[in-house]
Amino acid sequence: MPVPGPGYSITVRVEAPPSASAAGDLTGSVGRAGGVITAFDVVESHADRIVVDITCNALSADHANDITDGLRELPGVTVRKVSDRTFLVHLGGKIEVNSRVALTNRDDLSRAYTPGVARVCTAIAENPEDARRLTIKRNSVAVVTDGSAVLGLGNIGPEAALPVMEGKAALFKKFAGVNAWPVCLDTQDTEEIIRAVELIAPVYGGINLEDIAAPRCFEIERRLREKLNIPVFHDDQHGTAVVVLGALRNALRVVGKDLADCRVVVCGVGAAGSAIIRLLQKKGPADVIAVDIDGIVHTGRGDSDPNLQSIAANTNAEGRTGTLSDAVAGADVFIGVSAPNLLNAEEVATMNSDAIVFALANPDPEIDPLEAQKHAKVVATGRSDYPNQINNVLAFPGVFRGLLDAHAHEITDDMMIAASNAIADVVDGERLNASFIVPSVFDSAVAPAVADAVRKAATAGRTARPAPVGGSSLPWSMAEDLEY
Amino acid sequence: MPVPGPGYSITVRVEAPPSASAAGDLTGSVGRAGGVITAFDVVESHADRIVVDITCNALSADHANDITDGLRELPGVTVRKVSDRTFLVHLGGKIEVNSRVALTNRDDLSRAYTPGVARVCTAIAENPEDARRLTIKRNSVAVVTDGSAVLGLGNIGPEAALPVMEGKAALFKKFAGVNAWPVCLDTQDTEEIIRAVELIAPVYGGINLEDIAAPRCFEIERRLREKLNIPVFHDDQHGTAVVVLGALRNALRVVGKDLADCRVVVCGVGAAGSAIIRLLQKKGPADVIAVDIDGIVHTGRGDSDPNLQSIAANTNAEGRTGTLSDAVAGADVFIGVSAPNLLNAEEVATMNSDAIVFALANPDPEIDPLEAQKHAKVVATGRSDYPNQINNVLAFPGVFRGLLDAHAHEITDDMMIAASNAIADVVDGERLNASFIVPSVFDSAVAPAVADAVRKAATAGRTARPAPVGGSSLPWSMAEDLEY
Repeated sequence: MPVPGPGYSITVRVEAPPSASAAGDLTGSVGRAGGVITAFDVVESHADRIVVDITCNALSADHANDITDGLRELPGVTVRKVSDRTFLVHLGGKIEVNSRVALTNRDDLSRAYTPGVARVCTAIAENPEDARRLTIKRNSVAVVTDGSAVLGLGNIGPEAALPVMEGKAALFKKFAGVNAWPVCLDTQDTEEIIRAVELIAPVYGGINLEDIAAPRCFEIERRLREKLNIPVFHDDQHGTAVVVLGALRNALRVVGKDLADCRVVVCGVGAAGSAIIRLLQKKGPADVIAVDIDGIVHTGRGDSDPNLQSIAANTNAEGRTGTLSDAVAGADVFIGVSAPNLLNAEEVATMNSDAIVFALANPDPEIDPLEAQKHAKVVATGRSDYPNQINNVLAFPGVFRGLLDAHAHEITDDMMIAASNAIADVVDGERLNASFIVPSVFDSAVAPAVADAVRKAATAGRTARPAPVGGSSLPWSMAEDLEY
Repeated sequence: MPVPGPGYSITVRVEAPPSASAAGDLTGSVGRAGGVITAFDVVESHADRIVVDITCNALSADHANDITDGLRELPGVTVRKVSDRTFLVHLGGKIEVNSRVALTNRDDLSRAYTPGVARVCTAIAENPEDARRLTIKRNSVAVVTDGSAVLGLGNIGPEAALPVMEGKAALFKKFAGVNAWPVCLDTQDTEEIIRAVELIAPVYGGINLEDIAAPRCFEIERRLREKLNIPVFHDDQHGTAVVVLGALRNALRVVGKDLADCRVVVCGVGAAGSAIIRLLQKKGPADVIAVDIDGIVHTGRGDSDPNLQSIAANTNAEGRTGTLSDAVAGADVFIGVSAPNLLNAEEVATMNSDAIVFALANPDPEIDPLEAQKHAKVVATGRSDYPNQINNVLAFPGVFRGLLDAHAHEITDDMMIAASNAIADVVDGERLNASFIVPSVFDSAVAPAVADAVRKAATAGRTARPAPVGGSSLPWSMAEDLEY
């Protein structure tokens, strides 16, 4: 059962009598309604009344209303206002654009703006690759969405998607020093999305596609990769695949199996499932069975969707047919990126010994992890309130940091596999166990390790590049580039 | 004659003998070559040599080479490297994206990202206008260019235009707390530009068009104003017009004339000239004569360009014909937004008494201001090395601050006239004189005054809006919006 969490935290300002029992009455009421109090602040005290801010976690809007109604019913208590802390965090937006240069006097202005800037423009016009040294292109990523598949909310449009893209941008900076900017497009036409991204690309060193519905997302990514000379990475596909493969690598270590010997069931063949299957197969030979709403994917189904055709052709070599139950019987690994409550404990019991279950549907997984644990050795979810959270934030900041530092013009499967191995290897042998197969999202070692792995994979075989440059400080080696 | 300025500042690192005369030899050489030394730093000292960084202002790349060559020719001196300070300022870009919210622990993440963010998305999906409270839209402006008319450099393309757009974004933040982001479009097709801006608009509270060539810029602005529900402002047109009208208001105060009694010659009918003419005419009746490369614009010329047709129809009521010389004879005001050295002192002498000359072509004005001063009472240019610099930075930050604070859906001529009056009124009667008709670009009173004037003009007749919100702090009044 879910518990009240900080994603739904409210502050209720109440006026109450100044009696000795007031505090107890208030906290008791919140507790009876199921709220979890995290702060109790008396903001005013008078002879005839006190004013108190009660901050508590709730489950939902209805639950918050129940809590507030409970307070209202107390004798002598008036609810003055209810503030929602999640909304407060969002007021005015979660990111901002700042100047990195001083603009305090005329000399500053002459260098950063006219007339000095004209020489920098001319240098780039003469040598376009200089944009990667002399502009934000070297450290900027567009977070592009059409708002068609946002979180579990579906097609909510570009404005409503913006808070997610801002959050993503904030995480890009926090974990990898990358300047990410939201590009929320007011269209859901494949051709228009492709053209719009092509047109805005000069400012960016990479494109992060986000929350774009399948199957449109596949064509958009493929064609942008052909057109642009900067890396294009659909996070819902590849970010998920990178983290899942990293987690799987460690889960297999825990159970002492080789991927080559495993049968892996991937339930859900949307953006994430398709990318997981492809990256799994790049890693090495594995017996992969894809399952969608119609059961096991096989060539005999005659699917018309090119993505399904490709999956049918490249998985399920033994031509299995049937339901999800049929697929998991005897399987070593279940990876769910589909919908809530599709799998039950009895089905997990039919899996091979030391089964691995990744139930990643959000917010409600394919199987309650406590149920899965009855028969599986390793269980992971996308939730933050269970061990082994599979979260894309482990991948995308470091992946783009590495791509930008390498001045990469594309992202390859090799780079993604290097990233997934780097995530896995952050968990050293001493810490590795069935409840700790991936590092914490707050582990500051993850992004640099991923960045390093991606940069090395991107520059393998190339002549040396300039040393990597972070978001805010510039080593002397870069200044030396500027001799004329 | 131009003097070496900080827009072209170099640091030369040299190795020299440790003799008593070394410093004198080095500075003497730079001085003879015409360089202006601003710093002399000994960075290493050894028994057999010293290493010195000489920082100096130069006029041009050739001049910088002359200075360096002069140092190389000194006996025993080796030039190790030459760094260009303007390029150093640009390394890695001039702006960055930062998080405004804490992301240090799980609770932070639950509010700013999943799962909490989903509720904010849902709120905006249900009430799209909430995007102006809960996202960066409330305080973000796109600085859009196609790179077709950048500074005096012309059509240098989107990558090479980026340093100018970054500089603009830095100024937006510095003077008005606005988050501005460069949108450099990889197309110069009118229809594609219009559609691209339409598609990216959800993230922004305003669009600043920049350095887009005429006549394309007129149609792009007009059609975007029809399509979008946020203000669209082509700075090269209206930013210039706002500052010019503000400066003209004060220049007329200095000479004691009324605009209604003046004949005004506008030389150049591109983006800036056209907008100046239109805004002048909105301000009140004035005898305006437009001049282009073919002489005085009049209806008898049979121009096919719609912009010229409109100007011909709305100016020059007396049907004058002839050259620029013919136009300025007897005129009260000359406003040049055209090309270098089109006007001479003898022509200024033919103007009405107490003539006003704004020679705004950049970097070289229509007439050397020292020449113009021989016969004109008030002279202004776009240059920073003469009094009365007409610089758009006096307008655009405050204009957009006011528009954003008003939640404006459009920008009107009334708002622009309010802005121009506000700029003029920052110069109080005590300070006003022929050499001080506009405030300094560093006068921190300008942007707030302009913002206030624009906000008032935008909200006139409307019911009260929430109090204005700056870039980084949120008043309690906004929090009160969030009761549910």
